[in-house]
Amino acid sequence: MVSRYREIEISPVELASQIAKKVKINLAAGAPDPKVIPLNEIREAYEEVLSSFRTKALAYPGAGGQEELIKEITNDYLPLLGVNLRSGEKVVVTSGAQHAIELLSKYFLENDIIAVENPTFIETLNPLRLRSSEVVPIPLRNDGMDVDELERVLKSGSKRITLLYVIPNCHNPGGVNMAECKRKRLVELAKEYDFYIIEDDPYRPIAGELPPPIKNYDDEGRVIYVSSFSKIIAPGLRVGFIIARKDIAEKVSLLEQLDFSTSTVNQYVVSSLIKKGVVRDRMRGLYEYYKEKMKLLVDELKDKGFAKFNEPKCGFFLLLDLGKDSWKVFKKAVENGLSFVPAKPFFLIGGETMARLSISVASKEEIVEGVKILKKSWEEVD
Amino acid sequence: MVSRYREIEISPVELASQIAKKVKINLAAGAPDPKVIPLNEIREAYEEVLSSFRTKALAYPGAGGQEELIKEITNDYLPLLGVNLRSGEKVVVTSGAQHAIELLSKYFLENDIIAVENPTFIETLNPLRLRSSEVVPIPLRNDGMDVDELERVLKSGSKRITLLYVIPNCHNPGGVNMAECKRKRLVELAKEYDFYIIEDDPYRPIAGELPPPIKNYDDEGRVIYVSSFSKIIAPGLRVGFIIARKDIAEKVSLLEQLDFSTSTVNQYVVSSLIKKGVVRDRMRGLYEYYKEKMKLLVDELKDKGFAKFNEPKCGFFLLLDLGKDSWKVFKKAVENGLSFVPAKPFFLIGGETMARLSISVASKEEIVEGVKILKKSWEEVD
Repeated sequence: MVSRYREIEISPVELASQIAKKVKINLAAGAPDPKVIPLNEIREAYEEVLSSFRTKALAYPGAGGQEELIKEITNDYLPLLGVNLRSGEKVVVTSGAQHAIELLSKYFLENDIIAVENPTFIETLNPLRLRSSEVVPIPLRNDGMDVDELERVLKSGSKRITLLYVIPNCHNPGGVNMAECKRKRLVELAKEYDFYIIEDDPYRPIAGELPPPIKNYDDEGRVIYVSSFSKIIAPGLRVGFIIARKDIAEKVSLLEQLDFSTSTVNQYVVSSLIKKGVVRDRMRGLYEYYKEKMKLLVDELKDKGFAKFNEPKCGFFLLLDLGKDSWKVFKKAVENGLSFVPAKPFFLIGGETMARLSISVASKEEIVEGVKILKKSWEEVD
Repeated sequence: MVSRYREIEISPVELASQIAKKVKINLAAGAPDPKVIPLNEIREAYEEVLSSFRTKALAYPGAGGQEELIKEITNDYLPLLGVNLRSGEKVVVTSGAQHAIELLSKYFLENDIIAVENPTFIETLNPLRLRSSEVVPIPLRNDGMDVDELERVLKSGSKRITLLYVIPNCHNPGGVNMAECKRKRLVELAKEYDFYIIEDDPYRPIAGELPPPIKNYDDEGRVIYVSSFSKIIAPGLRVGFIIARKDIAEKVSLLEQLDFSTSTVNQYVVSSLIKKGVVRDRMRGLYEYYKEKMKLLVDELKDKGFAKFNEPKCGFFLLLDLGKDSWKVFKKAVENGLSFVPAKPFFLIGGETMARLSISVASKEEIVEGVKILKKSWEEVD
């Protein structure tokens, strides 16, 4: 049979970021700002790790992750994040959050019905979609997933949903945070209707004050928590982790043998950066750094008469309803020197007029200039 | 449905290497010898890469691999390996050879029938098996896969084989090299019976003189070549690559988006080590280093009356027929301070009396002592 995986196509994020390299202003980026990557601390960490652990840091990665890093995550990092680790749970190190979702897709799915927010992050949706028979879109509101609508679907019994994928904080592309009461309710629904929840939470380290993770309301191991060091340290190391109930965690560790992709030395480097307080010391500052740029984007959009969006409290992304075909506006924008991501591919339903604007790599001047170009391009489209 | 991936179990290689940590002598290892990992060169490379490329080396990896590394592989490394790159082909960087096989499984397989050597490497068999409906074992001889037997299976038409997985050099666990005439014949059969070949060749960089890769006989893009830097540099970087026909290579690059696992900085480090000649300068020396240890193992085995094995010309592994249940001998050996890998799990058929002995991390003294313990343990089993 022709493999279903051949259905995969280049992601709109990748495409837009390739285009972004050719234009002046980049409001398309999904990556953190290189200007705030702790280059010197990372250089020092490589030097120290290779001096102290020597060839041990260059051996094959053990299944499930390096002990040193798991210890640092458990003892030092999770308390900083406000994420509870219950006694029946384990940390599994992965090659970033994307790899975590791929592993969890393998564990959980074999032609099952899943539910996701509409819109959701296209890159993580891909592995979930490719191992599912159906993806049920649940609308995203300004306080997160429409949990009432999810309950209606569950109650109707028309779709036997086995897994829910949700991005509760600094949503990509939606920019919103999920209300605390919805978090509790999701866990109750998971128990009542017997499904699991993947809580994808890569922005928490740089998100300032937030409600507790969904996971903290769970005492049955129905929530699998996914995190990443890409935003707080650097994406190029490819290190993230999962927290899951022990039986799930152990099987997921074994599934890592299939790709065996998590660099050993990079795990030691992350461990060293947590230990030395580099991670802790950056959390607040990065939150404020990005928040200031986001505030500027919001102000500039309003100033130019763009009003149909939710004000993000954290993260990189703002989802703007242009009220016109966003591909058409995008093409004009690229001609005028601006890149963003036309957001239709993030939507299972609708989204034709939506644009994902990112403040991550743009400077303040570029944000101001970018919104001007957006306005001009918008006016050029009928 | 319960995911088929939950069938995965801990690999005997992982298990034996965990046990190996607790005993005196390790003839179980699949990893290269830490004593010959170029620690200082790697340290320098991290320092240089982070100085010159700065945060560019810490960004998200691009799909398919970093340009710099692909250029180095293409221009400098493939000629050293004697691997031809045809004009219609492309290099795709992966997180090591294991990740490459996982990606190729996704590309090629959807409940298909595949053929592999019996025995074959259990770790790479796993991803192939989990996406296949049936795995047809083809006997391994002292000059490689029994190609006549493969032809009989193909000719009979009873099994529609779409993919053949083969380790032509320094076979793991078989220790043998495939004869040149068999390599040519495999490509002819692939054309005649319309199947693809995955040529897994991780040992070539440290294997001395070898026949050309199977790939070099192919002009249709039926052979996908898989290589790794784990043996020539270090396994902890998780960098390897695929060479494939352009259409396959491009789809495999997109499939990398699903796990997005290949560290950017590690790709730059490998690129730098190729550029500086570190890789080239180590090839001959590592071949001789391991060959000397293998010769000693062969001599010691013969000396102790073990005769049922093929003399490996390269690589880390020797497959010994103990003539007794190898799990029983293994248990005695562990009690006596020796670890090896009971090789039954590498076999789809038979293999109960087979042991995989590795010379990779053991010193010469340990090899001598290890064979003594093996003999003693063997005598203790009925």
